[in-house]
This record gives sequence, structure tokens and C-alpha cells, in this order.
Amino acid sequence: MRAAILAVGSELLGEDRAETNSLWLARLLADHGVELVRKVAVADQEEAIAAEIARLAASHDLVLVSGGLGPTADDVTREAVAKGLGRPLARDARLEQELRARYASLGRRMPEINRKQADLIGGGVALANPQGTAPGQRLEAGRATLFLLPGVPHELVALSERYVAPWLAERTGGEARERITVRTAGLPESEVDERLAPVYAAFPREEITVLGSAGEVRVRLTVGGEAEARRTHLGALRAAVREALGEAVYAEGEEASLEGVVGALLAARGATLAVAESCTGGLLGERLTRVPGASAFFLGGVIAYHNRLKTEWLEVAPALLAEAGAVSPAVARAMAEGVRTRCGATHGLAISGIAGPAGGTEEKPVGTVAIALASGDPAVPGGQLFLRLPGDRNRVRWHASQLALDLLRRHLLVTGEG
Amino acid sequence: MRAAILAVGSELLGEDRAETNSLWLARLLADHGVELVRKVAVADQEEAIAAEIARLAASHDLVLVSGGLGPTADDVTREAVAKGLGRPLARDARLEQELRARYASLGRRMPEINRKQADLIGGGVALANPQGTAPGQRLEAGRATLFLLPGVPHELVALSERYVAPWLAERTGGEARERITVRTAGLPESEVDERLAPVYAAFPREEITVLGSAGEVRVRLTVGGEAEARRTHLGALRAAVREALGEAVYAEGEEASLEGVVGALLAARGATLAVAESCTGGLLGERLTRVPGASAFFLGGVIAYHNRLKTEWLEVAPALLAEAGAVSPAVARAMAEGVRTRCGATHGLAISGIAGPAGGTEEKPVGTVAIALASGDPAVPGGQLFLRLPGDRNRVRWHASQLALDLLRRHLLVTGEG
Repeated sequence: MRAAILAVGSELLGEDRAETNSLWLARLLADHGVELVRKVAVADQEEAIAAEIARLAASHDLVLVSGGLGPTADDVTREAVAKGLGRPLARDARLEQELRARYASLGRRMPEINRKQADLIGGGVALANPQGTAPGQRLEAGRATLFLLPGVPHELVALSERYVAPWLAERTGGEARERITVRTAGLPESEVDERLAPVYAAFPREEITVLGSAGEVRVRLTVGGEAEARRTHLGALRAAVREALGEAVYAEGEEASLEGVVGALLAARGATLAVAESCTGGLLGERLTRVPGASAFFLGGVIAYHNRLKTEWLEVAPALLAEAGAVSPAVARAMAEGVRTRCGATHGLAISGIAGPAGGTEEKPVGTVAIALASGDPAVPGGQLFLRLPGDRNRVRWHASQLALDLLRRHLLVTGEG
Repeated sequence: MRAAILAVGSELLGEDRAETNSLWLARLLADHGVELVRKVAVADQEEAIAAEIARLAASHDLVLVSGGLGPTADDVTREAVAKGLGRPLARDARLEQELRARYASLGRRMPEINRKQADLIGGGVALANPQGTAPGQRLEAGRATLFLLPGVPHELVALSERYVAPWLAERTGGEARERITVRTAGLPESEVDERLAPVYAAFPREEITVLGSAGEVRVRLTVGGEAEARRTHLGALRAAVREALGEAVYAEGEEASLEGVVGALLAARGATLAVAESCTGGLLGERLTRVPGASAFFLGGVIAYHNRLKTEWLEVAPALLAEAGAVSPAVARAMAEGVRTRCGATHGLAISGIAGPAGGTEEKPVGTVAIALASGDPAVPGGQLFLRLPGDRNRVRWHASQLALDLLRRHLLVTGEG
């Protein structure tokens, strides 16, 4: 089955807005083994839309159209599709009734301009929109099936899940693939790749995609085939990948975050965290407090950007600062221990580094970062990192925060639940 | 002149990558008054690309093609365009020589696969690529002109500026419009709109676009017409807008940032800043330290997420916390003054709020935020804000940081340079 996506909207041809509805639709199609052949974006112009519809319907099995179903004068998708397919467009009395009822239930009167949302293309089936006033439509045109979907992202997703997904499932025998994203921290992409060598040897190479970014490597597993066999195979692949990557895996799925995982580990242990940040300037604390309910594990900390704050607030010895330098394992350790004890937390986490563009030296070039964790537990005291990170100021800072969170995560895994 | 953009690349039909080269090209076209009629994305498939080329060249005056000019087997744009136009494709000896010379200058030998980058389509003019190995090509086909450009963004921009922009300028009589983006903080979109009423009355409405986001409103001014008259008109429009918006304007252009403007104001006054953050958890400090050279004006501060840190580190009186509550103007003021004096800064800036999703009460619902600035100057002591912000946790936090920075900016404008 060959599919095309047509995105309608003059704003999509401007300089500000990348078209992103199609990313979600692309995944839905791929999940059902449908090949997406092309994506087209056109302005809110009846002629241009009609020409695209005629062409796409003639050469694809499925055409997903998004946008232009609103009530305003520039919403012309209904008219254009009718014209492109040479079909009539007529007001549907029942659809209009439903629209009026929707407004009435909200205690409002339907504006007259919304009436045109009840226009149905000849042969079209209306698709009720629970999240907005724009109903979708499904049409058959020769060998092609067309779905007209609203352009508002959450409405597009809702209608696609309700109408397009079951249609695809029926024609393709259900989802054709399943996927898991295994997320790792603390390893460079090259090491993830090396560790996966036995998995590459035992499983088809195209089932495994490695996607690297600063301080995180995602391993995406995609398995096709018949549902039962697929599940078994994916289970085996997943187990092999997790075995190969071990403690580097911090979560599965795109919803998870490293700060969320660290927060949950802290909370499960009844532990609390305080942070001391220099080059990251608050990024570590900002990430930890993205987690709803962060107060269960996060106390706060110190942004010790100026060296004076490192000595006055964190009790880092001036002699140590002078001797080892602010960006050194010893100072990072002192910062972590200082913030831990002064905040009364069980754990202290510190970052000091040279994010650039200025401030580098021959001995400590831009990107040099020292990270330390203090736990106050003599048995498992913490840990530290001292390394050079690539990239610009923003990338160095993000990468440092990622490594710091991962240092804490690995420490908490070792100590176990309290 | 009607233009189309064809983006080539299988990755553009997947779920991960939005196509963004076209945003930059769209601006280039609009700057020259050229109408962008459609954008198409196709996979790295010769047939699909050839079909699009034939169609687009037949119905547009200008076709900008990006991607598929690399050396690997899936880079088939050259072959596909030759096929789509019914032209031969031949190795160009001089182009191959240039490619080899490029490698030689880097002390490397050209891999054999790169030879095909010297293939020139019949009638094509090679466009040298100073930033990579993929040369572009320009072709005439009937009424259409085609530019083949590399897909790597900085190479695409470089070749477009070097070859497409002058071509457009020659055909359109130069840039057809000029633009300025005036950026404001501290006013809601509705108030910006109200203040602009006299400007709307005096200037064509379509020259002014208002774009709102959390804590920032951009006013984009776009003026067309003949170069000299345009410049005069844009100057008058800009003056009128700046007059109407007054002190709410913090910068012009997309490169500027509020934290950068605040940093420059602090530095110009020889002033220093310390921050005390509760609900933002470090975001304010993180934003200020995005600015390269932030150490000139930023000392650091305290992330006082837990109330105990507000009393112990910032000397907020426990009785005040108990009586007024952590999210109150009085506590925010105490935090700002506490962090200012304890860090030895000239200015202290504090945020306390309920970012949600939990923690709201009837009296202080989610989104309630208290912001305070302490200056230590009895003549211009600072200021405060106590308000309720809309949106989810992330939006509330960002908006609060924006308002805090703007509070400081307005204060510094009043005090003048030191």
C-alpha cells in the first residue's frame, strides 16, 4: 500500500512553521507497514489543493489530508477536494444539527460561518470530531481512499486514532511492527555500538537503530512480522540489548526522562538531593524540578558561578581553589560535600567546568568539566568524573548535566532501596 | 514568479525529522516577492524524484531541489533529475579535477565513490560548493529554472546565498521587502495590540504581524515596494511602533535574547546579580549563564526549593513564611534581599511560585507566582510582581523567568548607566 500526505495551510509555506503533523502520521503508517511515498504542502488555495488531490488520488492507495476544515474564508479544503475529484459538495442536515447541538451543549449559539463545516463531499462519510468543531471526512476515489483531517494537532491525532488506525488495521491485518526505544546514558555512541556487537551478530541488522546525542544514546528496536512471532522476537531482541548494555540503560520509551528516573530512585530510597552548579548555572536544578512533585527528593542548592560563592557558601577551601583550580576533581568533590552537608541532604551533586567560548587554557581547554557526587555514606561515598566534552557552550552544559544525573543514577542503583 | 521546493531524502518521510531547509528558502523567496506555491518531500527513489521534477518544472518558474547530491548509493538526485527532464548525465572532467584538488588540499585522497559528484546533467551549470564536496547545479527547462542544492543545512544556505539570491535579485529587481522584528517583554499580547491601535490606523494592516508567546510578544514589520521608498516607510513604521510600545521593547531581531539584554545592561552599570529561585529551580540562573561572559555580571545564587533553604540560606523569617506563605510578595522580597546581601551583589532577583500540577489552593491556584527585585538603592529600591500565569508547569516556569528578567531590565533602564 502506497500513501501520500497532503498538508494544507498557507502558514506551512512561510518561514516560521515546520510541518509536524506528518511526523505523527508517518509513524502511524510505518506501524502498519504502509509505505509513505511523498509529502506535499500547499497554500490555502482552492486550485492548488484541487490539483494535488487529483494527482495524489490517481497514484496512491491512501491520501491523508490535513488542515483547511475550519469555518473561516481561507478554509477551502472541502471545496477543493470536491473540485479535484469532480464531486458535488452539499450541506448535510444531520451534520449541521450535530454542530448546533455541540454549541448548545456549551451554552453558546453556533456562529453562521460554522455552517459550512457541515458540507459533505459527494460519497463522503463524516468523521465525528470529539475535540473540535471540524468533522473529518472519508472518501473513496478510484483505487484511493482519502481521509480529510483537521490541522490542529491534537484533533488530527484524535481523529486518526479513531478512524484511520482501525481502517489501516483492517486492510493490513493489524500493526505490522512493534518498537521499543532503549535509552542509555553515560556511554558514548561508539561504546554502545561495540557493546551491541553480539546483538548485531544474532539479530537482523535493520532491526536495530542507534541514535546518539549529547550524553544520551537511544537504541531503537523495530520488529515486523506476524503478531505472535513478532512479540516473541522483540522480547528476545530487547533482552539481548539490555544484557549487552547493562547498567547503561536508564529507561525505555520516549516519555521517560533521566531526571525523572533519578527522582524516582531518590524517592524510593527516601534520599534527598542538593546541587552545586558552576558552569551549568542552574541547569541541573532546572531539570530536576521539571519533574512534577520534585519536592519529594530535591531540596535545592547553590549556583556558585563566582568563585567567592564556592568558598563562602560551599566551604570550598580558598587554598584548594587556588591550587587545584575551580575546574578540578578536588573542587567538585568539595562543592558536592559542601552543598550536601549545608543543605542537610543525603546526596550532593556538583558540576564545575569551562563551557566556553572563552576561559579555556592549554591545560584545561574549553569543554573541561569536573563532576562529583557526595553521599555521606562511608561504604559507598559517591564518585566523580573529570573529562573534556565536545561542542559549543550549550552542548557542553547539557552534556555535563546529563553525566551528573547519570553518575547519581548509577550510584543509587548500587546502593539499592532504603 | 511561482516557485516550488522539492526536498529529497528518505529520512524526511520518517517520524523523526521535520524538514526545515525549506523555512530558510521560503524566507529567501518571500524577500524577493516570489510566491512559494508548494513544497514536496520524496524519498531517495529515482522514479519518485523524476516524476516530481517533470511535474514541478512544467508548472513553476523556479524549482529549488535540496538533498541527494552526496556520494553514496542512495544519493540519486542527479540521475533522477536527468531522467525527469529527459537529459543525459555525464562525468565532467573539470569538476572531477576540482573535487580531487579539494581532497588533495586537505591532504587526503578522494574516495572513488565521490567521483559521481562530478556528474553534470545536460545543460547544467555546476555551482561550486565552498563548504562541502557536493557541487550544486543550475538548469533551464522550458520556462522553469532549477537549482539543485545540497541537503546539509549550512551548505544549502551557502550555495543559496551565493547563487540563488543573485539570480532572484536579477529577475525580481532585488529584494522586494524588508523586515524588522521588534521584541517586547512584560506585556500581554492584548495590550500590545491595544497600544498598536494608532499604528494600525496610520499604516497598512498587513505590514504588522503580532506573534505572542509566554512572556514575550514579537511585532514583525514587513514593508515592500521600491528600495528607497521602502526604507523610508519602514523607518517611519518602526518609529511609530517603538513609540507606541515604549519601554516594553527590549530588542530588535531574532538573534537577541532577554537574558543577553539584561546582562549587557548590568555590565554597562558595573552591577552584579544574584538569584533566588524556588519554582523555577535554576531556570533563571541557567538562562543568565547562557550568555557568554556571564561572569561579568552574574555571581550565582540559591535554589531554595525547600522552605528550609529559604530560611537558612536566605534569612527569610520563619514567621513570615508561616504567615504570608512561601508564594507571596513579602517572601519573594525577603528572598531577593537575602540573596543580594548574602552574595554581595548589587541586585537580587527572586521567584517563588506554584508551577503545578499539584500544590495549588483555592486562594493560590496553580500558576500563582511572586517575583521580586532588590537593589539596595533606597532611591530605586526594586519592584515586585504577584500574578497568576496560565499553562502547564513548563510554561508557568518559563513565563515567570521571563517576567523576572523583564522586571530587572525595566529597573535598570530607570537607573541609567553607572
